[in-house]
Amino acid sequence: ASPLPLILPFFIFSCHSFPSFSTAEATVILRENGKMREKTLTMDTLNPQVKAVEYAVRGPIVTKAGDIERGLQQGQKHPFTEVIKANIGDSHAMGQKPITFLRQVVALCSFPELLNSPSFPEDAKQRARRILQGCGGQSLGSYSASQGVDCIRQDVAVYIEQRDKGVPADWDNIYLTTGASDGIVSILKMLVSGQGRSRSGVMIPIPQYPLYSAAISELEAVQINYYLDEDNCWALDINELHRAYQAAKEHCHPRVICIINPGNPTGQVQSRKCIEEVLHFAYEENLFVMSDEVYQDNVYSPDLQFHSFKKVLYEMGPEYFNTVELASFHSTSKGYSGECGFRGGYMEVLNLDLEVKAQLVKLLSVRLCPPVSGQAAMDVIVNPPLPHEPSYLQFHKEKSAVLGALAEKAQITEQTLNTVPGIKCNPVQGAMYAFPRIFIPPRAVEESLGMSPDMVYCLRLLEETGICLVPGSGFGQREGTYHFRMTILPTTEKLKVLLEKLRDFHIKFLKEYASLEEPKR
Amino acid sequence: ASPLPLILPFFIFSCHSFPSFSTAEATVILRENGKMREKTLTMDTLNPQVKAVEYAVRGPIVTKAGDIERGLQQGQKHPFTEVIKANIGDSHAMGQKPITFLRQVVALCSFPELLNSPSFPEDAKQRARRILQGCGGQSLGSYSASQGVDCIRQDVAVYIEQRDKGVPADWDNIYLTTGASDGIVSILKMLVSGQGRSRSGVMIPIPQYPLYSAAISELEAVQINYYLDEDNCWALDINELHRAYQAAKEHCHPRVICIINPGNPTGQVQSRKCIEEVLHFAYEENLFVMSDEVYQDNVYSPDLQFHSFKKVLYEMGPEYFNTVELASFHSTSKGYSGECGFRGGYMEVLNLDLEVKAQLVKLLSVRLCPPVSGQAAMDVIVNPPLPHEPSYLQFHKEKSAVLGALAEKAQITEQTLNTVPGIKCNPVQGAMYAFPRIFIPPRAVEESLGMSPDMVYCLRLLEETGICLVPGSGFGQREGTYHFRMTILPTTEKLKVLLEKLRDFHIKFLKEYASLEEPKR
Repeated sequence: ASPLPLILPFFIFSCHSFPSFSTAEATVILRENGKMREKTLTMDTLNPQVKAVEYAVRGPIVTKAGDIERGLQQGQKHPFTEVIKANIGDSHAMGQKPITFLRQVVALCSFPELLNSPSFPEDAKQRARRILQGCGGQSLGSYSASQGVDCIRQDVAVYIEQRDKGVPADWDNIYLTTGASDGIVSILKMLVSGQGRSRSGVMIPIPQYPLYSAAISELEAVQINYYLDEDNCWALDINELHRAYQAAKEHCHPRVICIINPGNPTGQVQSRKCIEEVLHFAYEENLFVMSDEVYQDNVYSPDLQFHSFKKVLYEMGPEYFNTVELASFHSTSKGYSGECGFRGGYMEVLNLDLEVKAQLVKLLSVRLCPPVSGQAAMDVIVNPPLPHEPSYLQFHKEKSAVLGALAEKAQITEQTLNTVPGIKCNPVQGAMYAFPRIFIPPRAVEESLGMSPDMVYCLRLLEETGICLVPGSGFGQREGTYHFRMTILPTTEKLKVLLEKLRDFHIKFLKEYASLEEPKR
Repeated sequence: ASPLPLILPFFIFSCHSFPSFSTAEATVILRENGKMREKTLTMDTLNPQVKAVEYAVRGPIVTKAGDIERGLQQGQKHPFTEVIKANIGDSHAMGQKPITFLRQVVALCSFPELLNSPSFPEDAKQRARRILQGCGGQSLGSYSASQGVDCIRQDVAVYIEQRDKGVPADWDNIYLTTGASDGIVSILKMLVSGQGRSRSGVMIPIPQYPLYSAAISELEAVQINYYLDEDNCWALDINELHRAYQAAKEHCHPRVICIINPGNPTGQVQSRKCIEEVLHFAYEENLFVMSDEVYQDNVYSPDLQFHSFKKVLYEMGPEYFNTVELASFHSTSKGYSGECGFRGGYMEVLNLDLEVKAQLVKLLSVRLCPPVSGQAAMDVIVNPPLPHEPSYLQFHKEKSAVLGALAEKAQITEQTLNTVPGIKCNPVQGAMYAFPRIFIPPRAVEESLGMSPDMVYCLRLLEETGICLVPGSGFGQREGTYHFRMTILPTTEKLKVLLEKLRDFHIKFLKEYASLEEPKR
């Protein structure tokens, strides 16, 4: 009893949205009882908030890069022999070696028999023993408390106090997380409420890391864009904050301001004065402050330094320090360790209402706990070897080598990009990215036909050179300007190749559109 | 300029909801400009969907147990010397030892220098090398693809094919997850849409594992309860499914059916016939099937066996196998390994619309990837040592010891509980829990005053004996019946102590209310 004849009309009907698959995958199949079996989950019935989510860092260009890579392995011909992925801050994938001490501690925690091995240093063993003491049944395989292992939270608090030159940190305010993303989404989730004009508005920088816009879409919050000042090294301009806030007040209730410092994708390091202005603004306007500080160890300009929002808030006095609600985020994925795969991170909250805090713990408890091996990795980052300990020298050498290489690559990237006509790159003061402005000739813009012109640019770059970048439109940019984000993570040698190919491509691209004029500013 | 005088009226005003804290934590403080600094995030402005979430497995009783435990350590006097936690399926915390082979592989992946160590067996090294080959830069510290490491997904597919006696599994349908919870929430998130009477309804068993009700609350979906048949060993009754479905159709659009097999908290193992009935029902009513199969290795009754929903679907023929949308979930946390802390898991999807699949990958990509060490742990579970490999004997011995002990404890628990007047326990056929019905005298019910009577019961049990269980009301139960969930995870010795204390407490409790009569059925 083949159901085919009856399927056909439906199959034709549904063809416009489902271009090519076998009948088994058609949305409609005849059931035994003569009724149709329809798919329950289609693009029409999919949660519209899920549909609205966009995440360019792993978007279509990256998918295409993966396809090309597999093609190369299978012998397909391309005008290049390898794909260079500079689309994502994934240090180890680009060849960075793990910090030995961190991995020793994680291995010891994973297989405690190694605590008897003479080939592991005593300080790594001491860290591992302490972590295991904090785990149920002394095993990394137990659930931790939803906030994380107590002693690791205590180590985080000590780290923050030292980082902030004595500003007190209470481990009751520390929550270990599954990477920083998890903490950011949890806090945003708490903050979204109201309907219509009273719906929560979330101020985010433009350009931004697209986790923010994705989470805002998913939570149906209102995104409030404040633009960073490209002409001023991507600095945050307090007047722009006021403008964005006043404009947004007309249609939503602005409740949150997100700051990424050092900046992603923009690489700027925020000045102390600017942080103070932002905090004063948040204080005045009753905003909850979310400071994404995952690049706190990634500052390359010798004349700049990282200031935590918390420390500045403290220095502004008790009226600020005791009232402004602040959540700060950190991660194992960046810094000098680059341990993305472990999904470790923490957040520190300040001035959170006590009942709300209990609600936060309840919310986190549904997912039980962050990965405990990621928690262990976080512990090493906040509690590294001390000068008198046996692992200190090697640790210090490895850490300095990573940060030194990044500083060098930040400079090479900026300098080389600025030699290319039609590309202008701000200094890469921190983080792991350059976000240069690229001139795209008007004819190329016209020919983009619905796609964003920088997407077309990056696709062609990938197809012609094997270089995988993310178009600026994935992060947001001022109307009519175009950018891309590239990481500075390839090895120095590979980075130079990348930059050379990029320059050649860009010049060819401009020539093709017969307009080697300088971009309009 | 102390703001205190002006704060006071507000502080008094807010006292009813914030019983005790310092002025620094009051919700309202005077700002320099004379306006009030109000907290942005309070119970009044908190996301109401977050407020609605409940999760009893880590609820108030567990918090109280933690407080008592800390009190004991500090020398506080209680009528017991230790807290016995039987509230959560956390095997290692209850003393179960990790599977050596699994931990060897994870340690090798974490610190690849160990690949040169003669003290690790060759089969563990071979697994670790294969996993590392699949990781960017051969490091566990790289992000994996959002669906997980390719070769691990391939291993999962091979495992499923073997488990299901040759039913084909395509690794394109495998998604590695952060524990099973993460996968379940992701799939539910996709399925929620519509407003009012067309809002998605999700059928869940009662009693259920409260992740389901929590996720449904958070997503504002409509919860549809179908009751398991306590008088028939908690079997799923197809007539009850029809009843629940028809009743729900009046006020929502039922789109999903969730099944937990083996059952949590109810411990039943579903019969093949019953699975077929459920799948036929889902086929007829266009329901998306979510089968939570995390206890697939935990079947203790020698006359029962685990049947996967997928295998049964296959055996029902291509009309079913090629159409019914199914997601099945597994985890590293349960089974014989009990590796909760690694947050490893996978899901397999069947018949998912191709565009929807792309949307799922996009949604997962925002969180980048599941923890890679959890993925490695999952790999060992689906790809354990084979009989000819050097680690086989030890692995087999450890696995059998864990599962043998669990089977023994399942029996001890059921039998002992059934000797207590006023307690009736169904056989613990699988999973890790007993969910006995307890008789609570009418006067004790009356005295509960707003709290659920089984919550009062479990609180008293904790305070008087140190035993930490979860009241049945946290999982759902038929009106007027009372239960608790206890795990069978304590060591046999400790379990016997627990059961004895529980019996004494229950008899005392009944005597106190002067009603030793049998519970009404």
